[in-house]
Amino acid sequence: MPASVVDTLTFRPGEIILYPGVPDPRDKLYQVREGLVRIQSVDDEGNALTLRFVRPGEYFGEEALAGIERIYFAEAATLTKVDELNPALLSPEETVELTVHLVSAISESYRTIQRLVSQRLKNRIAAALLTFADTPLATQDKAGNPVVHVTHDEIAAAVGSVRETVTKVIGELAREGYIRSGYGKVALINLKGLRELAHRQA
Amino acid sequence: MPASVVDTLTFRPGEIILYPGVPDPRDKLYQVREGLVRIQSVDDEGNALTLRFVRPGEYFGEEALAGIERIYFAEAATLTKVDELNPALLSPEETVELTVHLVSAISESYRTIQRLVSQRLKNRIAAALLTFADTPLATQDKAGNPVVHVTHDEIAAAVGSVRETVTKVIGELAREGYIRSGYGKVALINLKGLRELAHRQA
Repeated sequence: MPASVVDTLTFRPGEIILYPGVPDPRDKLYQVREGLVRIQSVDDEGNALTLRFVRPGEYFGEEALAGIERIYFAEAATLTKVDELNPALLSPEETVELTVHLVSAISESYRTIQRLVSQRLKNRIAAALLTFADTPLATQDKAGNPVVHVTHDEIAAAVGSVRETVTKVIGELAREGYIRSGYGKVALINLKGLRELAHRQA
Repeated sequence: MPASVVDTLTFRPGEIILYPGVPDPRDKLYQVREGLVRIQSVDDEGNALTLRFVRPGEYFGEEALAGIERIYFAEAATLTKVDELNPALLSPEETVELTVHLVSAISESYRTIQRLVSQRLKNRIAAALLTFADTPLATQDKAGNPVVHVTHDEIAAAVGSVRETVTKVIGELAREGYIRSGYGKVALINLKGLRELAHRQA
């Protein structure tokens, strides 16, 4: 185990790992070992907005390194194990890994901004379903199609919309044969079509 | 001069410093010395979208560190000097500085995403004008008010909208006494009011 690891913590789905606020000088950096962490803000009306997913091997809580106010909650999306790291004890290899992850997170944010500006909700939902399929929230059905275990509320948070609107678009995608929608899960039965939707502008 | 500095380059306003694409292994990292760099993408219809401003002391071209595809142009917004850095020769202090900057860039992106999801265009324009006021694009009028030297196209790129719509909202902000609008410039005459607008959720 690297010298930087202070502790390993386990969280159940929905448990909060970090709260918004100004980081304390003793705050740690976190690396996901297993599971999935959702970086999410909540507005004054209680609408959640997912800013990033943190997958195994990736880092979060990076504001501790910069003394910058954290404007989100970090929440376990599945049963999740995270390593608590002492930033002062990162090895050169870990520092490089962290830099690569931060650069990827910036690039991912830019794509989110581009989608919000240039794409319709239907295309953004297609993109979000494909993102979910690439996380531990996904299983496979008998035909080998990815099945993502998410609620319409969770999809709404991922695309910056509300449940009612998402439910309408999910119905549309199901009628058009892109997905099969069940309670708390969505099977992606036309991946090629969803990828086309996800890349199309406005 | 730090050992990492390979060269110092000067760019005139509007000159492109970096193009989109997969970074070459020999690509450099850049740090702004003087001026301002605009990180901007352009969609298939030619609409520009400003993803970030890079101010003196801050870095860009960080995809070179991660081998990640660059999805933007880096363009000089004013007369700009940048240091070309060899990432392999960064000192520990420069590495820390870079990390702090990357963390800030992520945090700034999150605020952009939140604004796009939760704010009306008018509030986003107020926020963009205040951001411009904090860059070398701003001067002061005789009364000490910040004057930002930007076109309506540049404001549109900063908020993910189009010129025609921005012109309408700028007119509204002027009538309401928040700003005074001239050719290629906007004077911020009610900073307190603009800050309130910028922080309000739709």
